[in-house]
Amino acid sequence: MPLLNDDRLFPTEPAVRALARELYSSVQGLPIISPHGHTDPRWFAENEPFPDPANLFVTPDHYVFRMLHSQGIPLDAMGVPRADGGPVEADPRKIWRLFAQNYHLLRATPSRIWVDHAFQTVFGVNKRLSAETADEIYDQIAECLSQDAYRPRALFERFNIEAISTTESALDDLHWHKMIRDSGWSGKVTTTYRPDAVIDPEFGGFAENIATLGELTSEDTSTWVGYLAAHRSRRAYFKTVGGATASDHGHPTARTEDLPQAEAAALFAKALQGKCSAEEADRFRGHMLTEMARMSLDDGLVMQIHPGATRNHSASIFDRFGRDKGYDIPTRTDYVTALRPLLNAVGENPDLTVIIFTLDETSYARELAPLAGVYPALKLGPPWWFHDSYEGMMRFREMTTETAGFYNTVGFNDDTRAFCSIPARHDVARRVDCSFLATLVATGRLDKDEAFEVAHDLAYRLAKQAYRL
Amino acid sequence: MPLLNDDRLFPTEPAVRALARELYSSVQGLPIISPHGHTDPRWFAENEPFPDPANLFVTPDHYVFRMLHSQGIPLDAMGVPRADGGPVEADPRKIWRLFAQNYHLLRATPSRIWVDHAFQTVFGVNKRLSAETADEIYDQIAECLSQDAYRPRALFERFNIEAISTTESALDDLHWHKMIRDSGWSGKVTTTYRPDAVIDPEFGGFAENIATLGELTSEDTSTWVGYLAAHRSRRAYFKTVGGATASDHGHPTARTEDLPQAEAAALFAKALQGKCSAEEADRFRGHMLTEMARMSLDDGLVMQIHPGATRNHSASIFDRFGRDKGYDIPTRTDYVTALRPLLNAVGENPDLTVIIFTLDETSYARELAPLAGVYPALKLGPPWWFHDSYEGMMRFREMTTETAGFYNTVGFNDDTRAFCSIPARHDVARRVDCSFLATLVATGRLDKDEAFEVAHDLAYRLAKQAYRL
Amino acid sequence: MPLLNDDRLFPTEPAVRALARELYSSVQGLPIISPHGHTDPRWFAENEPFPDPANLFVTPDHYVFRMLHSQGIPLDAMGVPRADGGPVEADPRKIWRLFAQNYHLLRATPSRIWVDHAFQTVFGVNKRLSAETADEIYDQIAECLSQDAYRPRALFERFNIEAISTTESALDDLHWHKMIRDSGWSGKVTTTYRPDAVIDPEFGGFAENIATLGELTSEDTSTWVGYLAAHRSRRAYFKTVGGATASDHGHPTARTEDLPQAEAAALFAKALQGKCSAEEADRFRGHMLTEMARMSLDDGLVMQIHPGATRNHSASIFDRFGRDKGYDIPTRTDYVTALRPLLNAVGENPDLTVIIFTLDETSYARELAPLAGVYPALKLGPPWWFHDSYEGMMRFREMTTETAGFYNTVGFNDDTRAFCSIPARHDVARRVDCSFLATLVATGRLDKDEAFEVAHDLAYRLAKQAYRL
Repeated sequence: MPLLNDDRLFPTEPAVRALARELYSSVQGLPIISPHGHTDPRWFAENEPFPDPANLFVTPDHYVFRMLHSQGIPLDAMGVPRADGGPVEADPRKIWRLFAQNYHLLRATPSRIWVDHAFQTVFGVNKRLSAETADEIYDQIAECLSQDAYRPRALFERFNIEAISTTESALDDLHWHKMIRDSGWSGKVTTTYRPDAVIDPEFGGFAENIATLGELTSEDTSTWVGYLAAHRSRRAYFKTVGGATASDHGHPTARTEDLPQAEAAALFAKALQGKCSAEEADRFRGHMLTEMARMSLDDGLVMQIHPGATRNHSASIFDRFGRDKGYDIPTRTDYVTALRPLLNAVGENPDLTVIIFTLDETSYARELAPLAGVYPALKLGPPWWFHDSYEGMMRFREMTTETAGFYNTVGFNDDTRAFCSIPARHDVARRVDCSFLATLVATGRLDKDEAFEVAHDLAYRLAKQAYRL
Repeated sequence: MPLLNDDRLFPTEPAVRALARELYSSVQGLPIISPHGHTDPRWFAENEPFPDPANLFVTPDHYVFRMLHSQGIPLDAMGVPRADGGPVEADPRKIWRLFAQNYHLLRATPSRIWVDHAFQTVFGVNKRLSAETADEIYDQIAECLSQDAYRPRALFERFNIEAISTTESALDDLHWHKMIRDSGWSGKVTTTYRPDAVIDPEFGGFAENIATLGELTSEDTSTWVGYLAAHRSRRAYFKTVGGATASDHGHPTARTEDLPQAEAAALFAKALQGKCSAEEADRFRGHMLTEMARMSLDDGLVMQIHPGATRNHSASIFDRFGRDKGYDIPTRTDYVTALRPLLNAVGENPDLTVIIFTLDETSYARELAPLAGVYPALKLGPPWWFHDSYEGMMRFREMTTETAGFYNTVGFNDDTRAFCSIPARHDVARRVDCSFLATLVATGRLDKDEAFEVAHDLAYRLAKQAYRL
Repeated sequence: MPLLNDDRLFPTEPAVRALARELYSSVQGLPIISPHGHTDPRWFAENEPFPDPANLFVTPDHYVFRMLHSQGIPLDAMGVPRADGGPVEADPRKIWRLFAQNYHLLRATPSRIWVDHAFQTVFGVNKRLSAETADEIYDQIAECLSQDAYRPRALFERFNIEAISTTESALDDLHWHKMIRDSGWSGKVTTTYRPDAVIDPEFGGFAENIATLGELTSEDTSTWVGYLAAHRSRRAYFKTVGGATASDHGHPTARTEDLPQAEAAALFAKALQGKCSAEEADRFRGHMLTEMARMSLDDGLVMQIHPGATRNHSASIFDRFGRDKGYDIPTRTDYVTALRPLLNAVGENPDLTVIIFTLDETSYARELAPLAGVYPALKLGPPWWFHDSYEGMMRFREMTTETAGFYNTVGFNDDTRAFCSIPARHDVARRVDCSFLATLVATGRLDKDEAFEVAHDLAYRLAKQAYRL
């Protein structure tokens, strides 16, 4: 019995379902544009086999291990590495069995669909994971992973990925990207400029990072002017060497500022000395978004802003395991006031593309759709992280389309670290969008021929166009 | 082929759709009560033909031109007048072609339904607007506009409008309303008392406005007592001369205050001198809402509060084009604390009607329905502005009905400046309400005979009763 | 004709409806676990007949009297007692007729379903309440109430209640609970430890309450250490004498603190002297939640937090009628920052269960599901109060399940004061959950065999397990 229902995520009324299926058929086979995510370029550079099923599906996937942890399972039992390098569970089969025993915890979550999708379509598994089937499925996946057809590049091609963008720190030397390019392999893997470490005064080792930035660019980053020049230089390096078409910015809030240059320079000097107050650090970050936007006007990089997560909510987990351990929690996020300085500075320029994401769905209809529905430079990123799901996508379309339309959105981003989830996530997005479109047609809000065109736009064209890929 | 699907906006399940259709049939032909909006009384006073299709559908419609602008089309290209009177595109056919080429941007927006509805039902257009059909449709509409049957009064009658309320500044002399009344035409067009210009200390020319208010009323508006008397006098004038049954208040927030008279008087004095801080101006506005409510207790005017828009978000657009150019953006709005002073002062009085609107849908279930579900004076206005849409109306009913019921709501307002959109908007509201009611019946939450009664209430009776029309 | 549609609250698409019905059939007859509410233990202790229909359905039910009041009906006319003991309407038949005449105000509200459910399934009424049927239905219910089969214990058994928890102040002597236990009756009625009166410095008579707490426990509650010991003692008493398995905390916000003991002690001393500022009182309440959580680690009581209501919004109603008169209004509530101190102190302990409720639905997907989806100690309470409804429950599942799953939720609480609404409310919850599950199966998000298991978990097992009943 297949794990996946062929009509999954389609409307339940038969006629509307039939239309959704028809729309989906027209986009199901389109190549994947994955313009933003966190896959590891090393995979494609070295093309080594993935080690084992637990390392592929459990240990690195914060969606999975946070859910098991919420029911009392220690992170170490799932092999999550400790900050101090101390021992954690190392037997992948034991980790896998723990996952299998607790697979019911993922019921009705997006992870369940993603895992089942990879099981069935990538590894040919056709039994539901459970304590009983754990070993059999483990063996089946492990056997696959030993084959060349399951190495990263082969999967990349099998997944029909036309282009994928990874994300690297501004200080990264991009050697994996160089290695991919030098290998002669035809897969298109580009980087994204992520300068948080050299923009956020509260980032660990900020002053050292700025010094390193200076060394990498041969600019005097002890001065404001040299610092900006270093960014320009580094952005150019990311474009040339890593094929970057975008930058990405993960800030606590969506705050932007457009300060007089002297004030920005003074804040930068304080930041270098480690003397910024929390408010000053926030103001500096906010100002740098506007500087980045100005550089985008020159070099054409698309700008992405991912605000609104309270990072490392649990002090004890952070101490023991470090960052990105499932303890980043969304918070209420203002956009109207926060984005105003940047939008007033550059938002009227149609050559600029600023893509804004949110973890606060209340902003969709109230703030983001009205803003994106008028400012030429502003576009809405797809539902992100906790909202990268059936319900999240449906709410996004229902709450943004009437005010922002389809053409101020930019298709789908998977934003994933889990390689095998990429086809699953894009499949979910295509299905949900086709369901939404079928419902629009069935309720007289869109003509059928238009729905086919929009389905293609949402599945493929808008991402390619917005990210200039 | 008709532009409109006869079953548009109805549920997709056939049995529920049939019930929605049956309910809708019972209210489809009811006269339109349009108790709040921004149509121009001059239209009905002079009864001149509308000039051309672009002037009817594009240039004055902020929903339309903001969406085209969001994709980089300059406002001048759509004929939007500049603040300095400088040249903008003046050829209506060129504007129309631009609109037609970009009509796909409106897919799945309420504007698309409104425009298609007017095209089909008012002008007999049966082709979808596009670059190809632009000229043909332009000619067809232009030809109609040259006929007497398309003059404002004829359309008013054809639209089956029983009563419409326009909105005039407290300083308006209401001469268009007088002209309508004196003309002997039977159409019921009344005004609404909108005193923002003489209540908001931050309104341009506040002190001059207050002086004008004094001249108009022969009251000494340099004193607090005289100022209040002038309001009373002006409200009486609006009732007598313009047939007003309501006042309307557009404030940045829903803040109300109930200050001691001496403190209010002192704030007023400061406001006249232009010395109010932002906080003091806000407090004064808040207090004036309570004063207006007290006057309503005396003169019977229904009070409307429209809070929560951040006006003129783009400084450059405001400088170049002025107000109301699509750059008003909703913000998070508190009601629980904000309305308390007013509700504590007068909210228990069942003879008073205060109708509250919101642009922040998060307040529906959390704040507004609980407040309207207990205070005798408070009623909920229909979904407003960005939320005057299928999804917006459905969310409104789903999030308010369980706590506020139907009878603390007041039917539909179109709140429009676009005359031809009035039948379309009321039609959308009637369809959505019937869809909601049909779903309630189908899920055992309402009996069928009750649904017919409620459908009539929502389409006609509640607006008439709440606004005393 | 029956008042209730057998398929009420099920999806409208016939195949999905059939599946929902099948799921519901499997849980419809399960015993009721009612782990949190406000029924009066005296009913079960004395087992006296309920007095009359108005006293059962109107006068004590704030959902009902607030809705009638919102349309201008004075509270006294519904028999709501005045704070000063002055006269109010005392004729139950007159109150009943008023209710009947205004029964249309409850259309599409949960109260309508609860009342109709009790009418039909408890009292055999098969006509809709209205002015015409008022007397007939009154007589029918009154006749029932005179029978032994309608006394509290008989109804308890007929309702198939396996366990019910009432809520008593920390200062209560639990004599009704003792009386129930001593009576030999087999019904399981337990108490819940509700210490607001001795935790909130702003609670009326705080210092006297603390003194009483000292007397009850023979601890020196004038000291911080003695105060904590008194809590421990009282919690033990509630466990032993009243069978308590949980504590409950109704605070204005979700704020928690984990202060140094010396600081907490100093705040306590100030609180005893009545010298706490509003901020200090709030900090003390916040700290006490963490102290309560620590005690829960020792004594195993499950901890419930019910934050976010602005109490007694109308000063005049509060003056005239006192607390709990329908004027408690939800407000925007933060959880991410507010719960952090408590969660950092004890949230990683899987032996602790903290159940959090909200009146702010915007926190479901943004804050609460992400928090409950990772912290082992945190669970989500069911939709509460204004959200204890079809739409409220559906939004809860749609907005929490994808991130928190089913197993970080705890089944249903009725939280009611209205005894006859208990079966109705649990029936609504079971129906809505089965509708949600059927939709998941129909859209390929859950397998059918899993849906049956989850339906049973949500209807019965999770509440029993979470509350240790």
